[in-house]
Amino acid sequence: MISTAAAAAHPNIAFIKYWGNQDDALRIPANGSISMNLDGLETRTTVQFDTSLEGDRLILNGEPVQGDALARVSATLDRIRQLADLQTSALVRSENSFPTGTGIASSASAFAALTLAGATALDLCLSERELSQLARTGSGSASRSIPGGFVEWQAGTDHESSFATSIAGPEHWDLVDYIVLVSGQHKVVGSTQGHQLAGTSPLQAARVADADRRLELCRKALLERDFPVLAEIVEQDSNLMHSVMMTSRPPLYYWEPGTMEIINAVREWREHGLQVCFTIDAGPNVHVLCPGSDAEAVKRRLTSLANIKSILKCTPGGPAWLLEPEISGV
Amino acid sequence: MISTAAAAAHPNIAFIKYWGNQDDALRIPANGSISMNLDGLETRTTVQFDTSLEGDRLILNGEPVQGDALARVSATLDRIRQLADLQTSALVRSENSFPTGTGIASSASAFAALTLAGATALDLCLSERELSQLARTGSGSASRSIPGGFVEWQAGTDHESSFATSIAGPEHWDLVDYIVLVSGQHKVVGSTQGHQLAGTSPLQAARVADADRRLELCRKALLERDFPVLAEIVEQDSNLMHSVMMTSRPPLYYWEPGTMEIINAVREWREHGLQVCFTIDAGPNVHVLCPGSDAEAVKRRLTSLANIKSILKCTPGGPAWLLEPEISGV
Repeated sequence: MISTAAAAAHPNIAFIKYWGNQDDALRIPANGSISMNLDGLETRTTVQFDTSLEGDRLILNGEPVQGDALARVSATLDRIRQLADLQTSALVRSENSFPTGTGIASSASAFAALTLAGATALDLCLSERELSQLARTGSGSASRSIPGGFVEWQAGTDHESSFATSIAGPEHWDLVDYIVLVSGQHKVVGSTQGHQLAGTSPLQAARVADADRRLELCRKALLERDFPVLAEIVEQDSNLMHSVMMTSRPPLYYWEPGTMEIINAVREWREHGLQVCFTIDAGPNVHVLCPGSDAEAVKRRLTSLANIKSILKCTPGGPAWLLEPEISGV
Repeated sequence: MISTAAAAAHPNIAFIKYWGNQDDALRIPANGSISMNLDGLETRTTVQFDTSLEGDRLILNGEPVQGDALARVSATLDRIRQLADLQTSALVRSENSFPTGTGIASSASAFAALTLAGATALDLCLSERELSQLARTGSGSASRSIPGGFVEWQAGTDHESSFATSIAGPEHWDLVDYIVLVSGQHKVVGSTQGHQLAGTSPLQAARVADADRRLELCRKALLERDFPVLAEIVEQDSNLMHSVMMTSRPPLYYWEPGTMEIINAVREWREHGLQVCFTIDAGPNVHVLCPGSDAEAVKRRLTSLANIKSILKCTPGGPAWLLEPEISGV
């Protein structure tokens, strides 16, 4: 018996960040978060359940992968198999449209695509909510790559109550996210490990306690397309997460000189009237956000900075979607 | 009637930072702090009370100064005059041994020297504690430049209970502070204004609530000359202050690309066995601390960095001290 499906999903950029869990195993987050899916980047994943396989196999960007990455994929497949009451192993082939090593986290799009493809291959008829819950258990932010456009992940308190929904579709606001890759990158601590350190910072509880205020401001700014309000809360929220990171034990530092150059430049450009703001995930690269109307001016200024390697342009992306599977042998 | 005295004081570098007040007018701080006086840098101040003057006058590094700076000096002189039950105006001449515009805050050494010179000129016989209290009302951190060596400022709750005392003399530990001036400095918000913003950060209350733990760790590490423990708590405390700054409304950003370069370099050197750590005040320059035994190795590495302008070397300094006044006409 062979049953196959393929799906794709976009990564997302969080405007209100996810950092730290109530429950590490289930990835129930300490606070809710809001993000935008990133059109222009995607992970495409084929899941082929095959009774002739003696264990799950993972081929990532053409290369067989084992160890922790495979175990994490198998754990998500286990949840899907459990729902289908099945034990068949699967071959998973996954490709990112963006080169690895660019500092763009692929786990959100990867686990969203894996979940949709895996559930479809086994003919499970899951709602968006159920897919978001399942994707969350593989990678927290993957829950936000299931729905389309601008997405809010409600923290919830258990597996059932922790999932993401769309606040507005991708056509709601023509925001642009320039992902600016900075030079001189060091190795960084992965976010799964990082989430577990959040509670060691004297600041995490205060960051979490303040989250509802930020979520409300951000949600309202998105719905009203109010860029100045969005800019202020997005930057504050990014700084709150990095504050927790830099005061954890051990501390986590993700910023490089180039990161700081972009932060200061973006703030100066905004003071001079440009609609632009920044947000930074668990890495040195900077996401520079602006409305479409200011995109060309922002791009021009970005290219004049000293410490940048390259710039990727993304716009609001849709939900995870099914693809025609290419059937192929192992 | 003319009565004159002259005094000098060192600036200090805080290991546990002062940021935010319980009482802005009296500069009663939100939390206690610990610092080291910086031998190698000093402010020298002469105060000459002169009944022929029609108002206070301030000459700073040879230039007459008016406006806010003069008003702040007059406010400290008023407190001294009140204690002496006198209303005579004064000519204040103050010189820094370090060039202004280097990003080294001079208000701590300036108000410590002003307080000691002013009180001495009026023959007030004040204890170190009273001098520290008085200096504090001019500039909070000036309270720490009155006693010698390694100093703790007890937050207290009112004017009487908020003052600094020496934990250990300058000879206790041969720590070195390399003040590394980074290039590309922007204008920054002064610390008096900054302190008033501290409460607007969602993180300030948590930072303050955690202060006793940090003070105890730092005090103990200093007394035991335990550099690894000192390094960890000093860097965490510096990051806590900058976390509050960067999440205030409006946010305060003091770091430049060169700041980030030094932070990352210092951490890497320490991982490779060097005893070294960093701390950063309300500006982009980095104070790089190490025991004397590691000073040459640290200096060599610092000079190899890309974004630095110059390096000043300081060692633990003594208390504020009296000078022979040079009597001169206005």
